[in-house]
Formats: sequence, structure tokens, C-alpha cells
Amino acid sequence: MAKKYNFYAGPAILPQEVMKKAQDELLDFNGIGLSVMEISHRSKDFEAVINTAEAKIRSLLGVPENYTVMFLQGGASLQFGMLPMNLLKGKKADYVHTGEWAKKAIKEAKLFGTVNVAASSEDKNFNYIPEKFGFSPDAQYVHITSNETIGGIQWTKFPETNGVPKVIDMSSDIFSRKIDFLDVGMIYAGAQKNIGPAGVTLVIMRNDLVDACADGLTTMLSYKTHAKEKSMYNTPPCFAIYIIKLVMEWIEGQGGLAGIERLNEQKAKAIYDAIDHSDGYYMGTANIKDRSKMNVTFRLPSEELEEKFIGDAKKSGFIGLKGHRSVGGCRASIYNAMGLDGVQALVQFMAKFAKENK
Amino acid sequence: MAKKYNFYAGPAILPQEVMKKAQDELLDFNGIGLSVMEISHRSKDFEAVINTAEAKIRSLLGVPENYTVMFLQGGASLQFGMLPMNLLKGKKADYVHTGEWAKKAIKEAKLFGTVNVAASSEDKNFNYIPEKFGFSPDAQYVHITSNETIGGIQWTKFPETNGVPKVIDMSSDIFSRKIDFLDVGMIYAGAQKNIGPAGVTLVIMRNDLVDACADGLTTMLSYKTHAKEKSMYNTPPCFAIYIIKLVMEWIEGQGGLAGIERLNEQKAKAIYDAIDHSDGYYMGTANIKDRSKMNVTFRLPSEELEEKFIGDAKKSGFIGLKGHRSVGGCRASIYNAMGLDGVQALVQFMAKFAKENK
Repeated sequence: MAKKYNFYAGPAILPQEVMKKAQDELLDFNGIGLSVMEISHRSKDFEAVINTAEAKIRSLLGVPENYTVMFLQGGASLQFGMLPMNLLKGKKADYVHTGEWAKKAIKEAKLFGTVNVAASSEDKNFNYIPEKFGFSPDAQYVHITSNETIGGIQWTKFPETNGVPKVIDMSSDIFSRKIDFLDVGMIYAGAQKNIGPAGVTLVIMRNDLVDACADGLTTMLSYKTHAKEKSMYNTPPCFAIYIIKLVMEWIEGQGGLAGIERLNEQKAKAIYDAIDHSDGYYMGTANIKDRSKMNVTFRLPSEELEEKFIGDAKKSGFIGLKGHRSVGGCRASIYNAMGLDGVQALVQFMAKFAKENK
Repeated sequence: MAKKYNFYAGPAILPQEVMKKAQDELLDFNGIGLSVMEISHRSKDFEAVINTAEAKIRSLLGVPENYTVMFLQGGASLQFGMLPMNLLKGKKADYVHTGEWAKKAIKEAKLFGTVNVAASSEDKNFNYIPEKFGFSPDAQYVHITSNETIGGIQWTKFPETNGVPKVIDMSSDIFSRKIDFLDVGMIYAGAQKNIGPAGVTLVIMRNDLVDACADGLTTMLSYKTHAKEKSMYNTPPCFAIYIIKLVMEWIEGQGGLAGIERLNEQKAKAIYDAIDHSDGYYMGTANIKDRSKMNVTFRLPSEELEEKFIGDAKKSGFIGLKGHRSVGGCRASIYNAMGLDGVQALVQFMAKFAKENK
């Protein structure tokens, strides 16, 4: 059977080295005769896992000392509500509306205060990142969705907010590139695109915001709880955190974030070049300067051809190329673990398909 | 190296057959060339996993048709808050206070309404299950903690509530025995004792209660969302659900719940007999008729001997025998995956230790 390439928007593939190591250790972790799934989260062996994962996250991302790293559950979707529950507190926050994920974040925030949509690209079906913002001076925070998986658009540089904390949903591009922590109040990310399996959510929060979180919340929904208890108030998703640790080690082996970022740029360029040099056969849907390096969205000359493309690709081992049902078309998600080989194989397939299906 | 036995209160061991199958399939699930961690939760392969897991749960537990099965995140600790947020709604609920876990559930419920502690065993340091209850006729539900891991006590039969729905935290004994669904409104359980790894929470809820859940909640905190979307509103913890499916298959191979229950009775009897026939060297801490079949709590003649017992046991391969820090003493947690061989080996060790350390 030919090698399969998974271009799903998520859960995404994980590095092969990570999966092999996880397999090797699955029945016997650290020589203790048990799986990492089968030991107490308060055991020394697991404490070393979570501490190492945190240390590597801090080192690779360059997280400043005055931020707390937390491993939570519930995905970004729970964060959409947990964030305003803790930090909006009946006041106002700015949200930049860039697509489906921003929309969900906005919907939940409205339950806890006033949402000012400071900019939106809804007028062009979310195919670009806004450049002009109506930020409120009294906003508690400015919410940004770093990468929109459906529209295939990504922020290149986050906007200046003049001291108002930025809260950034980086679920689909965390650890794909370096981050400038200036005025960053919080970053959150479901793990299942770039750093691990579904079931763990990374939250990085500036300590003054942790202190400012609302009182009187359900214990598990307060960031204060998880910050104070170092993600161990109750049993954390141990196995998923262990995989994150392995992924961090893999990123180190790729030359850290600088190495990963370079590779992601090469991969994205290869596919976008294939689109742009196809004489209009493939048409990128995102505004060129805002094109996502994680999710490449494109159309073919007709919906019939798109259907054939997706079907033929699947037969050739390229799966998950169907665009999101809300927008149609095609989408190739090329997160960190997708190698340049997979992208190059897809590019070849695209050229062949275009030639044979003019 | 001698075989190790993990008697931790959780995360607990998983059946060896389950771990081996997970290892075999870790790099290539269903022959698709990818791990179950690396595929879309909306793929046919994963949908078969979650649907099979649910079907087997329903069949093994005998879940009536008018109940919804959900796979959530956040552990029982999140349920302590999510339950009253959805079902208490400023009204009153009865809670039976049997120990540390019930206490946590009560604390969170007080944020959302009136809690009537209908019975408590606090007067005897939670070493028994109450038999007399001051239930309120107007309670929204009666909350019960099926098994207390710290005190080592377990309900044998749930109380009659005359139509008021029982909500039962079965985190530490679900799938260890059969359940009578009469007047059961909801059952919830973190997976990491009896049915899977940490990171997934099983919720089984009667449909009229789903319908009665509060409106206006954060989407992810409403049971209505997860019931309607069949646990797929957002990406579920796919790998943990996959392990649950394997554990369900393993339980079927043990003769279903009847077989598991028989085995659990044998295991518990073996240890309690060792305690009761030790001429008072080992002293069980729980009221005899309420002794837990999951967590066997006992003391030795002195704290020094307890410390030596725990240390010597560890050297002999029996780990996790230290009692919870809040009560001290010793505790052997013998969840489903602990075999009779492990229990018998511990019993032999206990006899030898008693003889050598009179």
C-alpha cells in the first residue's frame, strides 16, 4: 500500500518519531513496568513528564517568567466561555471577527459582558485579515484568532493594542512560528493540530491576569485554580501531556521554532506556488498576503472537478482534502508534522490531475 | 525484575490485553497507516470507535433507551460544578455526605442553589454509609457518591428516593458491578479508575433531565449541547474514548458485568479476610458492611510499622499502598484491571510482613 498522507484540519498527524517512541514505551514507561497511562499523576515519574513538558514549552516559545503555563481540558471551545467568565466580568472586550472560530468565541463572550467587534472580514466571506481596528480604550482584552482553519487565513503580525492585553487563540498554529509576547495577556490552543492528541488544551497566561480572574466561579472553571495547583487540581489528561512532551523534544530536534517556521514556509510556498502557477486551474481563496501557512484553501474550475479531485486524491493516498462544509472547495492542512515530502507528493498529484482533467 | 503491581487510587492500571492491543495498533489503526490519534474525529474510522464504545457501554451496563451517553472532559471535578449549573438552577438538591468526594460536590453545588445535606457520616470520619436520610420532597435531585476512595466505603444499595432523580458519582466503581437504573437521573465517572485513561468523563443522563437543563449556559457547559451533538460538538478526547472501547471489549471477555462483579468480590474478600484473620495486626478502617470492594483501607499497629510496610511492599513490587494524606494508614486500590493474582500476591506479602514485624 502506498504511503498515506493526512491533510485533515484536525486532529492532525503527529511526528512519526513521536508515535514510535510512544509505542515503544506504551507497556513500560521508564522501566517501571507500567504505562504512563497507568500511574498516579502524583507519582515522581509523571511529575517529571509534566514538568519537562512545561519547561520545554517555555524554552521553545520563549515564554517570559511572568506567565503561567497550564494544561487544561475541553479544547478551545471551552476556552471561548472560560475566558470571558474569568476576565470579562460584565465589562467590555474587543474581538476581531475573522471567521468561524472567532465567531464562536464572540458568541460565548456575549454571555459575560459587552463585545465590541473591533474589525471584521465578514464582508468578503472571511478571506482576509483586517488591518483597521476600532479598539475600545476600556477593553479588558483584545481577542484574536491567530489562524482560521476554514477560510485559510492567518495573522502575520498581531496588531498593536497599546497595553491592552491580547488574548490569542492559537489552536491551529501554535508552535508553527515564533511569538512576540509584547502585550500578550493569554494564549490558548487545543493540542490536536500542532502539539499533541485531542484532549488537552494549552493555556499560557500572564500572571497579573490570573490574579484578576473573577471570584466565585466553579473551582474547575477558574484559571486561578489551575495556576495555583500547577494543572494538578484534579487528574490531568496524563497521556496527552506525555505526547506533548515528546512533540516538544521532536521540535527541539528540528532546530526549535526557527527550524519549524522555516520548514512551514517552504511547505506553504510549495503548495501556493503550485496553485499560482496552474494557469488558473487551481484558485486560492484567501487574500494573498493573509494566506495561512497551516491551511491552504483552493477551488477548482467546477464543483464536479473538486469532487473528482478529492476522490482521486484519496485513492492516491492523500486524505482529508475536502474543504469545510460551510465553504466547500478544497483544503490541505499542513501542520508541523506534515513533512515536505508529503507536500511535494501532493504538488505532483495536483499537477498531474490538472493536466488530465482540463 | 519482579512483576510490579499498582495499587494506586488512580489513575489505575488497565488490562494488559487492552494495552497490548493499543500498542499493536498505535502506528496503524484499521490498516489506514495512521494512529487513531491522527485522524479526524469526523472520519468514518473514528465514528465507528465512538459508536461502538457507546453501544458496548449501553449493552454492558443495561442503560435504558431513554438515557443519553456522553463522553466529556474535565473529570468528575468539572461535573461537580456542571451538574448544579444545569440542574439546580437556584432551587434545592439533596446531597449525601460520605467523604472527600461528596464534600467537593457539595461545595460546588452551593454556588448554584440550596444544598440540603440529607445524611452524613462525618461524625465517624466517614467510615460508614448512612442509612437514615432527611430527603426534601422538593429536591431537584439526590446526589450520591457511590464509592469513596479515601475512606474506603461503598454503597451496596442506593437509597429509595421515591421518584426524585438520583445523581450518582461512580468515578471509582463504575463497571465494577451491575446498576439498577430505577430513579437514576444521571451517572457520571472520570474514566481513570475502571474504564480508561485520565482525560475522558462518562456521563449517562436520563433524557427528561437533559431537556430540563438550564438555558443560557456557555455552550460547552450545557449537557444539551453534548447530548444533541453526540459528544462531537468539538473534538472529543479521541484516544481516551478508543481505550474505553477496548476496555469494554475486555469486560465482555470477562463475562460482562456479572463476571467482573464476581471477580471483584473474590478480590475484596481475599484482602479483607487477610485483615480479619491477622489477629488484629491489620485493622480495617471502614464499617464492615460498607467496606469498599475498590479501595481497601487498613491500619497497622503503629505509624512506624505502616511506613515500613509501605516501603517494604514497594521493594517487593507492590506500589501505591500509602493511604490518602488526609487519613494516613494504608490503602490497596483493586479496580477491575487488578487481577486475582495481584491481590493474592499482596495477601501473601501481608502475612509474611505481619509475621516478621510483630
